[in-house]
Amino acid sequence: MAGTDRTKRGLAGAEGGPAIVLVAPQLAENIGTVARAMLNCGLTDLRLVRPRDGWPNPKAAPAASGADAVLEAARVFERTEDAIAALSQVYATTARPRDMVKPVMTPRQAAGAMRAALGRGEPVGILFGGERAGLDNDDIVLSDTVVTVPLNPSFASLNLAQAVLLVGNEWYQSGPAEAPAGMDRGAPPATKAELQNFFEHLEQELDRAEFFKVAEKRPTMVRALRNLFQRAHPTEQEVRSLHGVVTALSGHRKDGRPRRQG
Amino acid sequence: MAGTDRTKRGLAGAEGGPAIVLVAPQLAENIGTVARAMLNCGLTDLRLVRPRDGWPNPKAAPAASGADAVLEAARVFERTEDAIAALSQVYATTARPRDMVKPVMTPRQAAGAMRAALGRGEPVGILFGGERAGLDNDDIVLSDTVVTVPLNPSFASLNLAQAVLLVGNEWYQSGPAEAPAGMDRGAPPATKAELQNFFEHLEQELDRAEFFKVAEKRPTMVRALRNLFQRAHPTEQEVRSLHGVVTALSGHRKDGRPRRQG
Repeated sequence: MAGTDRTKRGLAGAEGGPAIVLVAPQLAENIGTVARAMLNCGLTDLRLVRPRDGWPNPKAAPAASGADAVLEAARVFERTEDAIAALSQVYATTARPRDMVKPVMTPRQAAGAMRAALGRGEPVGILFGGERAGLDNDDIVLSDTVVTVPLNPSFASLNLAQAVLLVGNEWYQSGPAEAPAGMDRGAPPATKAELQNFFEHLEQELDRAEFFKVAEKRPTMVRALRNLFQRAHPTEQEVRSLHGVVTALSGHRKDGRPRRQG
Repeated sequence: MAGTDRTKRGLAGAEGGPAIVLVAPQLAENIGTVARAMLNCGLTDLRLVRPRDGWPNPKAAPAASGADAVLEAARVFERTEDAIAALSQVYATTARPRDMVKPVMTPRQAAGAMRAALGRGEPVGILFGGERAGLDNDDIVLSDTVVTVPLNPSFASLNLAQAVLLVGNEWYQSGPAEAPAGMDRGAPPATKAELQNFFEHLEQELDRAEFFKVAEKRPTMVRALRNLFQRAHPTEQEVRSLHGVVTALSGHRKDGRPRRQG
């Protein structure tokens, strides 16, 4: 999916969201794809605990597809404890809560809880484990809440960037005033009078073409056609086009003279 | 994130969800990662329109991380129209609705609408464009609704598998069919093939009536008319009526003979 304004590749769209803490990530490419997923969701605070292949790492930026600012601002820590020291709430993403008594939330529930915490001025962060084994029990113990992404239980394995994207997207969607649904018109809708006028034009031509063969059925058929066009909620321009279609097909100019036969 | 039971790699967790239609995908690896994202979300109906590097392709399976069953069941089509012919509702994922009058939904809203449609027995599908350029206007015109993933507007570019994952995950989370709000039809909706057939009939008659006076404007006008009729979600019966209207107005019987002049 395209759609990024490439002139705005910085952290302009970002806001103060949760920190994303990668614990013992392996491939620098995956750190790059995580940075991209973060910036997709307006997240910019990336923290790396013991990245296996060292940091900074030249393999990260090409994978970040332009989210370089997130990589450049990333901080490295030796221990998970250090990475989360200043946070008030920590969430651990893991597919299965292991024998530990922890609250478990979906990313959507966690997003709400994180918004509430940040609203109180409490910084929050989310732990993601390395590619091979995920978070270990010692990391999960450091967290307040387990976050489990709802996925097909018989095929739940995600790569690191995808896990960050799903959790981050719930964060992003939990935000204020999001993408309103609705019709993208770019043009004013027709008034009811304009629609009515079109209906009359259409039905007049249909009468002339003897479309309504059975007189008793005419009201039902007229209603059905009107319903159909009405459901499309045409714009003014579209109603003009429909007039044009009827005029062209029926071969009559507006002055009522029949189209010359070619 | 780990957590998959590797003994259950088939389609066991899957259910009858929307078809995922990749239009002109480029790299087979990306088809593999899409298959993985689909199965993560319990989706199994993969359709490929003109895959650039041919199909089947040995580079797909390693990228699918075990979602081989989705790849093996994938079907290939030459045209988007063919891939969606039997569907009742089609959604187009694109970051920006271009100058077209279409309803726009978030993946979450679309998930609810798709559940409702499937609950009525109406098959649905989602179009995703190729890696480079996304869907083109002709593909978007074939769809009923545009789906736009809510993302940081200054950094909204996703790779193909991530787009499928975000849309699929909303589908998965929308859970088993809840009480479908929606259109009370009392009649089955037309399939895309039936609609397509009507469009061709209409445009053929409009060509004959020299409706498209300026050749360069024909594609735009055709798209506008198709969008308009699509938005009405006509039933099969209504499509038959529309054929009747065009035939009556244009004064040609089905055998192509002109209407006698009275």
